[in-house]
Amino acid sequence: MTTRVPAVFRPYPLTMRETFRAELDGLIDSLARAARLTGQMMTNASTALNQADLGLAELVISGGGELRALCDDMDQRCVKLLVLQAPVATDLRMVIAAMHAVGDLERMCNLAQHIAKIARMKHPTVPIPGDVRPVFARMGLLATTLARDAATAIENQDPLSAHRLAQADEEVDALRRQIFRILFAEDWSHGVEPAVDAALISRYYERFADHAVAIARQVSFLVTGLPPER
Amino acid sequence: MTTRVPAVFRPYPLTMRETFRAELDGLIDSLARAARLTGQMMTNASTALNQADLGLAELVISGGGELRALCDDMDQRCVKLLVLQAPVATDLRMVIAAMHAVGDLERMCNLAQHIAKIARMKHPTVPIPGDVRPVFARMGLLATTLARDAATAIENQDPLSAHRLAQADEEVDALRRQIFRILFAEDWSHGVEPAVDAALISRYYERFADHAVAIARQVSFLVTGLPPER
Repeated sequence: MTTRVPAVFRPYPLTMRETFRAELDGLIDSLARAARLTGQMMTNASTALNQADLGLAELVISGGGELRALCDDMDQRCVKLLVLQAPVATDLRMVIAAMHAVGDLERMCNLAQHIAKIARMKHPTVPIPGDVRPVFARMGLLATTLARDAATAIENQDPLSAHRLAQADEEVDALRRQIFRILFAEDWSHGVEPAVDAALISRYYERFADHAVAIARQVSFLVTGLPPER
Repeated sequence: MTTRVPAVFRPYPLTMRETFRAELDGLIDSLARAARLTGQMMTNASTALNQADLGLAELVISGGGELRALCDDMDQRCVKLLVLQAPVATDLRMVIAAMHAVGDLERMCNLAQHIAKIARMKHPTVPIPGDVRPVFARMGLLATTLARDAATAIENQDPLSAHRLAQADEEVDALRRQIFRILFAEDWSHGVEPAVDAALISRYYERFADHAVAIARQVSFLVTGLPPER
């Protein structure tokens, strides 16, 4: 004899379409969460860098595991969606855009960790000389903001976000160029090692910002169905 | 009245399965071709760098268009395969692996161009000081070889290639660390700008090699069905 569950406790079985939407919504939530996580990692990496905070640097380096596990999980969920639901048209584009975004998020995680690793390696010294620290602080702030904006773009599925993020990204690029001008100027007095660190770190910020913009472009692709502009 | 084509000129119509295989084989050919192209771009970028060859630097910078067009085309063919054929199991994995590999190839193209752009910016100076040039020449050679090995791995669908490429990649990593030790040593006498250039260029080679290994990992995933090791 089987125990019958009262009808009131049995929800209507989900249709295939509803299952797909539910899975996709879960995926979008995870993507936004991962984008916020990369932003938090970058905030911590920047603080670790500017304040020679070894504990925070270690936190960023060890904390990458969580984000990478989340990315692996999202990647597998995308593949499962493709296998089990064989989505077409917009649904398919959405899954593909999600897969691209996962790749961007993984690299953002790596870039925040690269900065944390420089902070750890140079501890207890702050690798950035005092006179260029404000430029780096600004870059760090912009990079973090871009990650958060990418999260919001994912949540709101906002096709205009790509354009807005691209503008903020331009400021990051301009700051990177400014830093290189300072490093290469005659009056740079801090020697080779801080110059190399500064060049690499500014590159990491720049790449991090680029990936945040790429995510917003995927969102645009997803909503408009048009391939993102390069 | 319609003109009848003699039966001998009409091939049997392809089954859906045969169409898929034919499309996939075309995709694999294109991937291998793109991997060889990135290798060629990196060879040219390295020569432009080491010989202050402005024409070759320009060629790499303008030549990126061809590779990017090829990547866009492959990306669209992957999406089309997913839409029209709704592949499952190994076939699906193959298309997904191809999409990941396209992303890696695009970044390899960018990295070769970054090196060519430094060569162009510093022309007619060779940005790498004479005493470290052999290390850079070796890195350039290894990076190019890795791109070619990735192409061969794609063509042969060889799951063991990832392990072999990872070993060559370790040498690139070791050379990058060696370069940083030289740059940061007391007796570095070439000043800030060549040190910054050397640091960035060695990073670009390192990343290029990483992506070549990532492609070989995708091939492994494709053949064995097991997620690639990180």
